[in-house]
Amino acid sequence: MFEITHRDKKTKARTGVLRTAHGEVRTPLFMPVATQATVKAMRPEQVRELGFDMVLANAYHLMLRPGVDVVEKSGGLHRFMGWDGPILTDSGGYQVFSLGKDVKITPEGASFRSHLDGSSVFMSPEMCMDVQDKLGSDIAMVLDECLPYPSERDVARESLLLTRDWAKRCRDSSAGNDNPDERQLLFGIIQGGMYADLRAESAEMTVGLGFDGYALGGLSVGEPRELTLELVGSTLEHLPEEAPRYLMGVGDLFGLADCIALGVDMFDSALPTRVARNGSAFVGSDRLNLKNARFANDQGPLDPECGCYACANYSRAYLRHLVIAKEILGFHLLTVHNLHQVASLINSSQHLPLGTDTVR
Amino acid sequence: MFEITHRDKKTKARTGVLRTAHGEVRTPLFMPVATQATVKAMRPEQVRELGFDMVLANAYHLMLRPGVDVVEKSGGLHRFMGWDGPILTDSGGYQVFSLGKDVKITPEGASFRSHLDGSSVFMSPEMCMDVQDKLGSDIAMVLDECLPYPSERDVARESLLLTRDWAKRCRDSSAGNDNPDERQLLFGIIQGGMYADLRAESAEMTVGLGFDGYALGGLSVGEPRELTLELVGSTLEHLPEEAPRYLMGVGDLFGLADCIALGVDMFDSALPTRVARNGSAFVGSDRLNLKNARFANDQGPLDPECGCYACANYSRAYLRHLVIAKEILGFHLLTVHNLHQVASLINSSQHLPLGTDTVR
Repeated sequence: MFEITHRDKKTKARTGVLRTAHGEVRTPLFMPVATQATVKAMRPEQVRELGFDMVLANAYHLMLRPGVDVVEKSGGLHRFMGWDGPILTDSGGYQVFSLGKDVKITPEGASFRSHLDGSSVFMSPEMCMDVQDKLGSDIAMVLDECLPYPSERDVARESLLLTRDWAKRCRDSSAGNDNPDERQLLFGIIQGGMYADLRAESAEMTVGLGFDGYALGGLSVGEPRELTLELVGSTLEHLPEEAPRYLMGVGDLFGLADCIALGVDMFDSALPTRVARNGSAFVGSDRLNLKNARFANDQGPLDPECGCYACANYSRAYLRHLVIAKEILGFHLLTVHNLHQVASLINSSQHLPLGTDTVR
Repeated sequence: MFEITHRDKKTKARTGVLRTAHGEVRTPLFMPVATQATVKAMRPEQVRELGFDMVLANAYHLMLRPGVDVVEKSGGLHRFMGWDGPILTDSGGYQVFSLGKDVKITPEGASFRSHLDGSSVFMSPEMCMDVQDKLGSDIAMVLDECLPYPSERDVARESLLLTRDWAKRCRDSSAGNDNPDERQLLFGIIQGGMYADLRAESAEMTVGLGFDGYALGGLSVGEPRELTLELVGSTLEHLPEEAPRYLMGVGDLFGLADCIALGVDMFDSALPTRVARNGSAFVGSDRLNLKNARFANDQGPLDPECGCYACANYSRAYLRHLVIAKEILGFHLLTVHNLHQVASLINSSQHLPLGTDTVR
């Protein structure tokens, strides 16, 4: 299901191949976020042309709208959204806590009111698995409890135990199919707040339950970047070498580069696409806010080093006009550019630099 | 500059070739509306791939934002927006009256406050020509006064005389270049409210001034369709055969077909793209509102007869989801579909049916 193909000599970076029901993908990989079954402002084949083989969709959002039954009757998420590559579905744990209203947690599950229409929803680990099974994603995520940042140590520890219990129930209720190349894969999620020892404990417990891969959740939620990296590094040491490691919610170029060097295989983040819709572009080590008046007559491309469609065809002056006039083309072009920047970084990380070691 | 290539035997339809500084285009033609220097939700090459050779941009909008100087410094509108085919700029007459606040008309020109920031703006016929010259469009339109519908006869007549005076000033101030294949063309606009005799009078006066083409303005503004067709038909009789005739603001499939049969050569309308952004699709003789619950599980394409990208790849159920979730991809796909429908009609009208008569 996952095979490490090369290891970097100087860092802990590694390249690999992940096999899913919808084909093989190379790691490290970044999943553009298709929250509502579309990568915002993009056609699916444009996402693929940028170099992305896998996207992330969100069980919480799709359950509320259009409803799991609609996706199921459409033949599953792949057919519904016209994406024939692998899809990972986030369980919705994070969204319940960040978007749901009146969230109440019991050992049984999470009850909350929908952020769309206020209707009452209950989600148990078993229901979460059922939803993702019906969506038909290639990789499902366990239901986890996400903590606010910062959280006290005892709160973080208690949450950890709940997440472990839920993870066990997810594992036990996930559909049985022995062939890992055909069945839906299931990833556990490691929590533990900003406490390295709790994260180590969470990792040991989660690995003890046994999953196809392991995700680091609840990071990059406001803590300093140094702390993120420290926690990623220390937690990975408690995970099995041979399993894929997925850091949830990191999508800036520096974070990606640093975490690839620490041995992370998979990433997702709404950042590149959301930053674009806010009118900003990843350029070098900056984010250019196109609304800035200094771009009003700037005839240059967003980034002279970039070969994306937006940089090849449009000036900053035009992009600024589109952004200020709230024209859809502006959001599309900035999305293309930001995703291209991420794709370039990811692509180069799939070809490890000098000093690499061939595993097989 | 304009050559009629064929005439239909049964109707007054005709096909032709219009030569502009940015190339030849075939008529009848429809110009998708690029109000703010972008056809909403489309890349320029996608517009061209759908079969459109010419677009319309709006002097009023571009003058207010980003400002004519920005477009001029960018090398003109074609370069600014990445469209190398012909562009017609509307003068802004219609927008002054429909969008401007506190509009005051004097013989000298129109003063109003911007709909964007309330700032005071004055526009004279001479300034209107200067703006369009700086934008660098292939066809400029005279500044006209647009009447509310309905308007009393004496109001309509008075307005007509003002529009004629402004048209004369536009003609006299437009940049002098004798070669009609290189210079910016200038079209006059015929007004006259819903009064056939006033429209005839307006046509005679406008033709008397002499323009490269003649537009019918102030129609399809709320009057019954039969009346539109009657006025189009009767007004065209007062226009020279050999000049292009442009009906402003008609973009529904029936209106286009009917008016092509009456001998109109050029059209523009925001309708196909605006209807799309409202979540509706041109299908047969209907407009399907995708928000309707009956499409929730509809696995068929928007239109089984249609070969557009949206119909080839996505279900009504998915499109409905995108529209309800306000996803940009939904607006893009409906825009592609609606423009494709218009393009198909226009394309078939460029190949006149049985019974056509070759002119040359």
